[in-house]
Amino acid sequence: MTDLSATTGVTDRPSGTGAAWDLVSGGPAYERISDFLSRQAPETPCLVLDLPTVRHRYAGLRSALPDARICYAIKANPEPRVVDELVGLGSSFDVAGLGEIELCLARGAAPESISYGNTIKKRRDIARAYEHGVRLFATDSEPDLDNIAAAAPGSRVFCRILVDNKGSRTPFGRKFGCPPETAVRLLGRARELGLDPYGVSFHIGSQQLDPDAWEHGILAAREVFEGLAGRGIALRMVNLGGGLPAAYTQSAPPLQEYATRIEAALDRHFGADRPELLVEPGRHLVGDAGVLRSEVVLVTPETGSDRRWIYLDVGRYNGLAETEGEAITYRLRTSRDGDPVGPVVLAGPTCDGDDVLYESTEYELPETLRAGDWVELLSTGAYTASYSSVEFNGFAPLPTHCVDGDERTERP
Amino acid sequence: MTDLSATTGVTDRPSGTGAAWDLVSGGPAYERISDFLSRQAPETPCLVLDLPTVRHRYAGLRSALPDARICYAIKANPEPRVVDELVGLGSSFDVAGLGEIELCLARGAAPESISYGNTIKKRRDIARAYEHGVRLFATDSEPDLDNIAAAAPGSRVFCRILVDNKGSRTPFGRKFGCPPETAVRLLGRARELGLDPYGVSFHIGSQQLDPDAWEHGILAAREVFEGLAGRGIALRMVNLGGGLPAAYTQSAPPLQEYATRIEAALDRHFGADRPELLVEPGRHLVGDAGVLRSEVVLVTPETGSDRRWIYLDVGRYNGLAETEGEAITYRLRTSRDGDPVGPVVLAGPTCDGDDVLYESTEYELPETLRAGDWVELLSTGAYTASYSSVEFNGFAPLPTHCVDGDERTERP
Repeated sequence: MTDLSATTGVTDRPSGTGAAWDLVSGGPAYERISDFLSRQAPETPCLVLDLPTVRHRYAGLRSALPDARICYAIKANPEPRVVDELVGLGSSFDVAGLGEIELCLARGAAPESISYGNTIKKRRDIARAYEHGVRLFATDSEPDLDNIAAAAPGSRVFCRILVDNKGSRTPFGRKFGCPPETAVRLLGRARELGLDPYGVSFHIGSQQLDPDAWEHGILAAREVFEGLAGRGIALRMVNLGGGLPAAYTQSAPPLQEYATRIEAALDRHFGADRPELLVEPGRHLVGDAGVLRSEVVLVTPETGSDRRWIYLDVGRYNGLAETEGEAITYRLRTSRDGDPVGPVVLAGPTCDGDDVLYESTEYELPETLRAGDWVELLSTGAYTASYSSVEFNGFAPLPTHCVDGDERTERP
Repeated sequence: MTDLSATTGVTDRPSGTGAAWDLVSGGPAYERISDFLSRQAPETPCLVLDLPTVRHRYAGLRSALPDARICYAIKANPEPRVVDELVGLGSSFDVAGLGEIELCLARGAAPESISYGNTIKKRRDIARAYEHGVRLFATDSEPDLDNIAAAAPGSRVFCRILVDNKGSRTPFGRKFGCPPETAVRLLGRARELGLDPYGVSFHIGSQQLDPDAWEHGILAAREVFEGLAGRGIALRMVNLGGGLPAAYTQSAPPLQEYATRIEAALDRHFGADRPELLVEPGRHLVGDAGVLRSEVVLVTPETGSDRRWIYLDVGRYNGLAETEGEAITYRLRTSRDGDPVGPVVLAGPTCDGDDVLYESTEYELPETLRAGDWVELLSTGAYTASYSSVEFNGFAPLPTHCVDGDERTERP
């Protein structure tokens, strides 16, 4: 068993990150990945995904929120092998656009399992989704609703409302969602347009560290239900969005705590009239399944400081887009763990001044680390490979390899 | 002739942006692009590059800085047709990594025309570059210098020094460059290691709006020259880096003003001992050659404000990475230009809350703009297509089409 809890690389390491959030109970997943890396010695940088971890996470969520329909937010990682796993488990899918719909269908997902969750869509993409059999659409504006009515007649729609994102490491700002009173108007209009006003969605921000964050969304959803009931329309569904965390350096409560608080809020605001539930996990299902292996390109001293700059062969433009603003702080392992550590700045390999991963966040890494050594970024299964640039600075996109128990397969 | 100066889309429009910086003298380039778009009606979003503009810009720079060797910073746009043009014109190339070296060579560039300008490189990449015939390398640290000495024996090296980036829209921070005194030490050591200590480089930040910004870099370079002269080493080259602007909404002085100030600073600090000069334009050669055509996906009112949100089918993850922090503010044209305008927020199409282009910058666009209309982002030839993500949210990378006078060719 490899104890990963000892190697976050962060000076002011929070306590309580614990095994519950680790690469699934600490050992076997990491050992499978590590074994693959030593046997195959793939070129770095590369992402290795442990498929049993994805299955384990799906089962855990299934059991924590047994009434919720799980719609995997495929944008987190559209790796076909991950989609295959989730199709096999009976998951539904939250998609952002036509490309993702076609990927799901190509991997055997049923059209009824697809929720077109993007409120920004071209009318012709709605039409194409409808031709593919998709019948469930998010909306938050009148023009989009009109498009759905015209291009996907009779479909179910849910309205996304705007809620507070406090507590999220990557909040959404005001790009999506409308006030509850607008939702009442839009869903009323949906009925007039021949659509099926199905429910309400909200998103409390990705990597949400406060399990109480869902409370006000559920309350706001209840208000929309009541507003529509006053117009003789019975909504049936609340979509709890995403936000469930992966194991980065910040401490996050265990999944059960999220489930308990969400269930309590539902009881409080809906009582016996419990609606159907949807949940849209992305990061939570795949984040902890991934390890990104990189190589140290260069170690240089910082002028006038005791810090070193560690340049890796992975950076913001070939996989680590979520280090923008140092929002997501990955746990690290290195090939020199155990040696004395000192403060570092971590940067990527491109000629771009913005390609610095962590300069404010206080990471410490072994003093012995040098070019050619490896650094692993843990819990990098979400929002990494698919964010890679096509060829910025002539660097190739981050390749993904999958491991699965005894069988080890590779997909570049 | 299309007058583009009237259509920046920005409320507080600076004066003086003028024709000198426009899509090469205003009309013909834009007309070629526009003609291509109406004839071919390619799927949006797409980037259309006008190759005559690239040639025109190269010739302009050649004439403004006749003594400087022009090394195109290929990272700005690695489109093979652009490389072809520049190879044909006798340009040299500033490359960030092996991928770019191999692209240049594949398009017919001579190895002697290549400057490996990234200070962060693996020893095996240096070795591979050397095998390809590359003999000119940037450095700014001892470990990198040792790698060059080991893997590219006898090569010319120049040392990048750290200078102030004030006045740049996209400054570099502290990722690259060393203090002048370190440069003296490193270039002295280069000689001991059997390398050829060739000169000094600096970069005053991309899209530099102050033509005086080069002054202190040239002065610092002079200090390094003197420091080495004291050790019996005669440096021969000053690399002025990049920084020359493209025509965004901010006013930029004409190229001749940059050239005059740079020449004056060289006279002041080097006098009759004028060194060889290198210059690394990227943005300046290709930025204004590009028009990015996008489609309006949705227009929605902002709650509690008179602004509208305009959602385009292009955003930060499929071409507009440089809108991060609203650093680069593109000039816009729309299919409704001429109609009364009002304030807007511009956002991209993905389910990502960060995929907002301009929220603080005060853009105004026609009140009549609606889904299906087009919006063009001007001067988008640099740092767009190659930054696209491979498939984030299932959206394809930004395709590039090239136009060239009468001959119109397409490269998806």
